[in-house]
Amino acid sequence: MKKLTGRVTLPSQQNFLEETKELMDRWGADALRDSDGTKLDEEIKQLDAKIYTTYFVARSHNDFAKQHPEEMQQLYLMSQYNTAIDTELEVSFLTGYFEEQIQPDYLHDPKKWWEVIDRTTGEVVPANHWIVKKETNSLLIFKAKPWHEYTVSFLAFMKWDPTQMYNHITNDWRDKPHEIPFDVRQPHSKQFMRNYLKTWLAENPATDVVRFTTFFYHFTLVFNNLGKEKFVDWFGYGASVSVAALEAFEKEKGYRLRPEDIVDKGYYNSTFRIPSRAYLDYMDFIQRFVAKEVKELVEIVHASGKESMMFLGDNWIGTEPYGAYFKETGMDAVVGSVGDGATLRMISDIPDVKYTEGRFLPYFFPDTFHDKNNPVIEANSNWLTARRALMRKPLDRIGYGGYLSLAYKFPDFVAYVEKITDEFREIYDTINGVKPYTGLKVAILNTWGRIRTWQTHMVAHGKWYKQAYSYQGVLEALSGSAVDVDFISFDDVIQHGVPKDVDVLINAGDAGTAFSGGERWKEEDLLSVIREWVYHGGGFIGIGEPTAYHREGRYFQLADVLGVEKELGFSLSTNKYFTEKNESHFISQDIQAFDFGEGMKNVYALREVTDIIEHTNEGLQLASTAFGKGRSVYIAGLPYSHENTRLLLRAMYYAAHKEMALYKWHTSNVHCEIHVYPEIKKFAVVNNSNVQQVTDVYIENGEKYQVRLEASEIKWEDYTNER
Amino acid sequence: MKKLTGRVTLPSQQNFLEETKELMDRWGADALRDSDGTKLDEEIKQLDAKIYTTYFVARSHNDFAKQHPEEMQQLYLMSQYNTAIDTELEVSFLTGYFEEQIQPDYLHDPKKWWEVIDRTTGEVVPANHWIVKKETNSLLIFKAKPWHEYTVSFLAFMKWDPTQMYNHITNDWRDKPHEIPFDVRQPHSKQFMRNYLKTWLAENPATDVVRFTTFFYHFTLVFNNLGKEKFVDWFGYGASVSVAALEAFEKEKGYRLRPEDIVDKGYYNSTFRIPSRAYLDYMDFIQRFVAKEVKELVEIVHASGKESMMFLGDNWIGTEPYGAYFKETGMDAVVGSVGDGATLRMISDIPDVKYTEGRFLPYFFPDTFHDKNNPVIEANSNWLTARRALMRKPLDRIGYGGYLSLAYKFPDFVAYVEKITDEFREIYDTINGVKPYTGLKVAILNTWGRIRTWQTHMVAHGKWYKQAYSYQGVLEALSGSAVDVDFISFDDVIQHGVPKDVDVLINAGDAGTAFSGGERWKEEDLLSVIREWVYHGGGFIGIGEPTAYHREGRYFQLADVLGVEKELGFSLSTNKYFTEKNESHFISQDIQAFDFGEGMKNVYALREVTDIIEHTNEGLQLASTAFGKGRSVYIAGLPYSHENTRLLLRAMYYAAHKEMALYKWHTSNVHCEIHVYPEIKKFAVVNNSNVQQVTDVYIENGEKYQVRLEASEIKWEDYTNER
Repeated sequence: MKKLTGRVTLPSQQNFLEETKELMDRWGADALRDSDGTKLDEEIKQLDAKIYTTYFVARSHNDFAKQHPEEMQQLYLMSQYNTAIDTELEVSFLTGYFEEQIQPDYLHDPKKWWEVIDRTTGEVVPANHWIVKKETNSLLIFKAKPWHEYTVSFLAFMKWDPTQMYNHITNDWRDKPHEIPFDVRQPHSKQFMRNYLKTWLAENPATDVVRFTTFFYHFTLVFNNLGKEKFVDWFGYGASVSVAALEAFEKEKGYRLRPEDIVDKGYYNSTFRIPSRAYLDYMDFIQRFVAKEVKELVEIVHASGKESMMFLGDNWIGTEPYGAYFKETGMDAVVGSVGDGATLRMISDIPDVKYTEGRFLPYFFPDTFHDKNNPVIEANSNWLTARRALMRKPLDRIGYGGYLSLAYKFPDFVAYVEKITDEFREIYDTINGVKPYTGLKVAILNTWGRIRTWQTHMVAHGKWYKQAYSYQGVLEALSGSAVDVDFISFDDVIQHGVPKDVDVLINAGDAGTAFSGGERWKEEDLLSVIREWVYHGGGFIGIGEPTAYHREGRYFQLADVLGVEKELGFSLSTNKYFTEKNESHFISQDIQAFDFGEGMKNVYALREVTDIIEHTNEGLQLASTAFGKGRSVYIAGLPYSHENTRLLLRAMYYAAHKEMALYKWHTSNVHCEIHVYPEIKKFAVVNNSNVQQVTDVYIENGEKYQVRLEASEIKWEDYTNER
Repeated sequence: MKKLTGRVTLPSQQNFLEETKELMDRWGADALRDSDGTKLDEEIKQLDAKIYTTYFVARSHNDFAKQHPEEMQQLYLMSQYNTAIDTELEVSFLTGYFEEQIQPDYLHDPKKWWEVIDRTTGEVVPANHWIVKKETNSLLIFKAKPWHEYTVSFLAFMKWDPTQMYNHITNDWRDKPHEIPFDVRQPHSKQFMRNYLKTWLAENPATDVVRFTTFFYHFTLVFNNLGKEKFVDWFGYGASVSVAALEAFEKEKGYRLRPEDIVDKGYYNSTFRIPSRAYLDYMDFIQRFVAKEVKELVEIVHASGKESMMFLGDNWIGTEPYGAYFKETGMDAVVGSVGDGATLRMISDIPDVKYTEGRFLPYFFPDTFHDKNNPVIEANSNWLTARRALMRKPLDRIGYGGYLSLAYKFPDFVAYVEKITDEFREIYDTINGVKPYTGLKVAILNTWGRIRTWQTHMVAHGKWYKQAYSYQGVLEALSGSAVDVDFISFDDVIQHGVPKDVDVLINAGDAGTAFSGGERWKEEDLLSVIREWVYHGGGFIGIGEPTAYHREGRYFQLADVLGVEKELGFSLSTNKYFTEKNESHFISQDIQAFDFGEGMKNVYALREVTDIIEHTNEGLQLASTAFGKGRSVYIAGLPYSHENTRLLLRAMYYAAHKEMALYKWHTSNVHCEIHVYPEIKKFAVVNNSNVQQVTDVYIENGEKYQVRLEASEIKWEDYTNER
């Protein structure tokens, strides 16, 4: 078989021509890129490869930025809470912030743009009850109520780009200038952005792909007074604010935003918060602006005969690849970092681009590539996790980042990547454009819906959170499962009902979060639509604290559908009778040991007919029940594992009343999966583990056979072949 | 030393004269009682002992009750939740109830007295949208909204006294008639109650003490359709309702109660619920009535030359020994069951009675007194737990219940009780009326305050609840600790501030409960008063989810005072830096292994200066901090144990800034305690465990000495003695 090449992007660097050529050859790379910190030699640029060049729109131009400090990017920040001891309270609002990053905005009138809030009552303190003392960066409230807590929401300039700041501090770049971000909404910046791009394109003829890193607004990343991370929200629109933006918002939407609409009590509208109308409006406002401006940049790039590629990260705020406006940008490609299956699907499922690319791990940085470490371990783990998702919807390209010279010193790693790149091309060549077989369609139901496709329960890219992993596992399991996955919002359901082709709805999250739904579960239409749909045969899976909102004697508002409820301490007087387990339920058949992650305390079965599958001292952890012709399943939590992936798959088939269909294409061993491509009559049996596995394989015609797979092996089969 | 006798009550029974005499002699008993199910012979009644005779006011008179079925006791009940599939919904409101106990009230117009609620919207369904179908005990809603949930709150007669029902079913009494409770508020019942008591007193000349078991209203105890416990609330006023009561309430309070005021979404105003104004009014209304009627009964008893004793249980609802009206009753004595130290103090601290008596465990019933069991084990455990509390505030009498003939068959048990009764008398004789030394005063702060003295976090007497034991341990620890204990309400604090003599406030409980405080923590006055008090030197201890109410960016509303906060998932974006432990904190010095019971997830330190004493993967579990001149301590949970008792003691001394005072009178060994009686210059060193212990004893003059105590031993010392 002819060896495939291409679809792989490598980082390169100066004085590394021969080694680059060698690695390009071994890994079949057809594109080369620079990085933040590396540049390519002219000779390298002349190799037979596409050249990607990183391009910064709104930073890395300090000569310009310093001329227009008034156009520096801004953000709203909230001070710490301060308890008034007396009727006078002086608030050092910068306390806890990093003065190299943050500078209060004294250019615009604080009386107009700032807000002081009595957090004990929630009332805004009238502006004539306080003054700002610039010389000490403090604010004096002189009609404070003693023993109340106060916060100051202040407008600030962000004088250091957060990504450069992070790299700068982490790599101890010392005297390297701090890159100043500027707001392209403002006149000089907008002009500069366009002009500079044109100049740059002319000056970089060897560049084929302009890799935007990224556009205008960085996700919220704020450091503390010690220069360490204080606040990070990969979805945060906090650093898209400026007086110009606020004034434009008022003009466009017809009302003025309060600082509190952005500051949000210090939560800054984290995606875990149920978004307010004002915040949704603000997101929409920013997205429209970003789409319009990006479109112009893309057109300039296209006019120069090059492609535009967007990095899904850093200054990606407002682009929203799953939002309403992204298509309008005309973007050619998106590249992003692949941490796992869910992040791979987040990239590979992006509609309306010509191609997608994933940057795999490990990054070629000294933290991984040093004497005492074997980088193959991380590469293998990353590849196995992501490959499941690739089998469902492949990226068009893969790549790596960092210092190629570092990776080059690890021959085992070089050999392993050679294997990965070959395997990637084989998968891609076989299945690209072919819709894989799915047994059912599941929709993740939450406040956000489509715009947060594959993006739920994420705070900072790749960071583990105790409060999130038990839900993040749901996405990770789904990313490589043989099911269609949709993301729908409560508003979608209220307005249009549950989509006709959906078999199963999943509502997963902690109470009060945007992912569980909180106060949205007060809405009678939402409850009614789902009850009706399940009653007539739909499947509903609740994970953690689904539909939770304490009201009218219910905590799980769909307790009637779920057959389970959570004890908050108010109904201890009522006996909880049902604890007997069904030890041989369809859902738990392949599970050796349950793992519900954080699990859930105090959940109990409401009805005798609720099938309790697992019950621990903490309470019920897994159950199913019928509701009319439909079914529901309750799961306390679902951290990612092969067993839990199977458990979720079985739960979905059970909820959908499709138990027997599970065995149409199936592997008995939970560490293996089967991916089927009917259009090309092929299937692949995949070992997702790094040890040898034996599994029964169930194929469509009702037969099954046993197969042994080496560690990580894929066995492709042609299913016109009789066996 | 002359052997003391008396202060002990025994149950006796028919045909058991000689054995009774023998046991009276060995145990020094001076009173004999009958029970529900046992009667005393005339010969026994003539022994040299006070005779207690159980007396039932509002049950056990079926001849009367059957003549006036309209005066049967009533209660409000809520149906199950029913989901409407269509615009017609038929609700079988009796489903799940025990038809031998419950009978719907069709005598009074359901349209006036019942309530149908749409639980999806919270709206009351107009009475002309439903009809009651008596023949099927169902209610038909004919303008239901499909896919909404509905409940029916209906008025019912309770045709079987719950205690007799429990005994009847448990002991399989078969054909024994079901005792019908009647409502003494109603004319015939009231008349009967008085007349019968007079007759009965005349007919029972040998009775010295009328042991009321108890008065008018049983705590809420409802069985299910299988004749098993469905709902139990030892504090529940549910079975004090009747049309007569509701009408009288309206007259007295000037407004009409809704069924929902009693039904409370199916929570029936459990003490864990923050009480509504209507429910507090209703409690007040019932208490006034009960006090007035009890007073008349007591006067009748006194007129016959006998004493009145009230059993703290069964039909005790409305008596409220710590309420505003109990004093007016003129009650001579209260007797109750002693399950532990807290229940002992609940009895022994009752003001305004001549004497208190505790019924110790085990009850002389076949479940404990059988061949395969050693009843000494339970007796020892019960005695050791309760004795700590007895050392602080002794009961005036102790006693036992059940069948004396059963206990008689266990000579080791007889011998052990002989030891207990002697020890009890020695304690009582030494310390009765003497105020023990206390190092500080602590107040338990919650919604209820004084009326629920020693009664917090209790559902059913002696039953263990997963959601309660981590808080119940606080009371149990305090019941035998050398501190003054007060119970104060939020309203007390708002109206009068923190009492001057209080050193430490404790707020303990799960979020939203009456014990933590829920929405009460919105009240700025409450927050301000406590902040000010702590700031000026007060001590605040929060346990579990203290001051929890999610609002204005805070979950623990006194997070500023506590120095800790709980992550609900909205501030995951904010880094939590502080996890380093202080391994040698004053509070944890005597602790070998922490046990926070249910513990608490996701609590974290807000400030670097918060002293983290214990932090697990679940989050911070124990911490302290300063707030102005005051201090606070956070504890995740405190199940009862000797170690946790010490931990709480240390936490209180620390919070009160009295660390050195702890060593004024102290034992180094956590299984031992020292109780000091300055007025009589005596102290007792007590081994609370059932194994030998060695401890250092710190005495007031700054000296310490070592002592060895046998299992359960008390060593009395005279501290005028030099050593």
